[in-house]
Amino acid sequence: MNPALDAHGMLAVAIEQARIGLAEGGIPVGGAIFRTDGTLLGAGRNRLVQNGDPSMHGETDAFRAAGRQPRYGDLILVTTLAPCWYCTGLIHQFRFKQVIVGDSVNAQGGVAWLREKGFDILDLASSECIEMMAKFQRAHPGLWNECVGEG
Amino acid sequence: MNPALDAHGMLAVAIEQARIGLAEGGIPVGGAIFRTDGTLLGAGRNRLVQNGDPSMHGETDAFRAAGRQPRYGDLILVTTLAPCWYCTGLIHQFRFKQVIVGDSVNAQGGVAWLREKGFDILDLASSECIEMMAKFQRAHPGLWNECVGEG
Repeated sequence: MNPALDAHGMLAVAIEQARIGLAEGGIPVGGAIFRTDGTLLGAGRNRLVQNGDPSMHGETDAFRAAGRQPRYGDLILVTTLAPCWYCTGLIHQFRFKQVIVGDSVNAQGGVAWLREKGFDILDLASSECIEMMAKFQRAHPGLWNECVGEG
Repeated sequence: MNPALDAHGMLAVAIEQARIGLAEGGIPVGGAIFRTDGTLLGAGRNRLVQNGDPSMHGETDAFRAAGRQPRYGDLILVTTLAPCWYCTGLIHQFRFKQVIVGDSVNAQGGVAWLREKGFDILDLASSECIEMMAKFQRAHPGLWNECVGEG
């Protein structure tokens, strides 16, 4: 718990998850869920490779890790990579207050659609996130495609 | 594996999952993923109560259970209840060939949107599914609302 975390500090938590995933041989996408005061509720990462589990994206693993919550409309979801449609659906259903995105260069998912729907999307355009994902996609195109159902 | 399963037979697998969930004290939504020849790849159920895991809806638990798949465009996703937006996003991202729905009375989720997008949605209007969910929603409105983020 770090009540002083700003958006960049929150993204750093998700980036740490992505780097752990990369070190595990996985797809480097990390996510985290915070209260607006910066309290961390849960963090996670894509676990397709590690657990053979296609359902655990960075965002959904963070959602799982945060456990049962009475509501999500006052919570912030952070992700190192723009949410795919699966995770876009999660955001839409649970009405997160804000979504903080590290990289919307290497994937765009449903970000434009969420903005049209009035969601608050803060794109930090993090060079760390963008470079990590670009390098991964170049090195492992098959894994990347599998992860987003484009196998 | 039962290669002779038709749509109703596939839905019966999802209903069995929902009934297991209900017996566990959980939210009775079940899901399953099949090949078009009726081969079962994975089945699952909502596990919010059982595992304290809000990420496991009937559909996403079936997706997890089916494990890594080279593609989803030739697979059928079956669910006892119309997919919420989270599960609608899953369907959209992974381009399932067909979605078989048991009940679109007690929830509608993103079914109309998926149809607009050209997805093949087969609504079996199963009285067994409809009655099971209606009864659950009446008996446990708080759990139902939590499950769909309307707490």
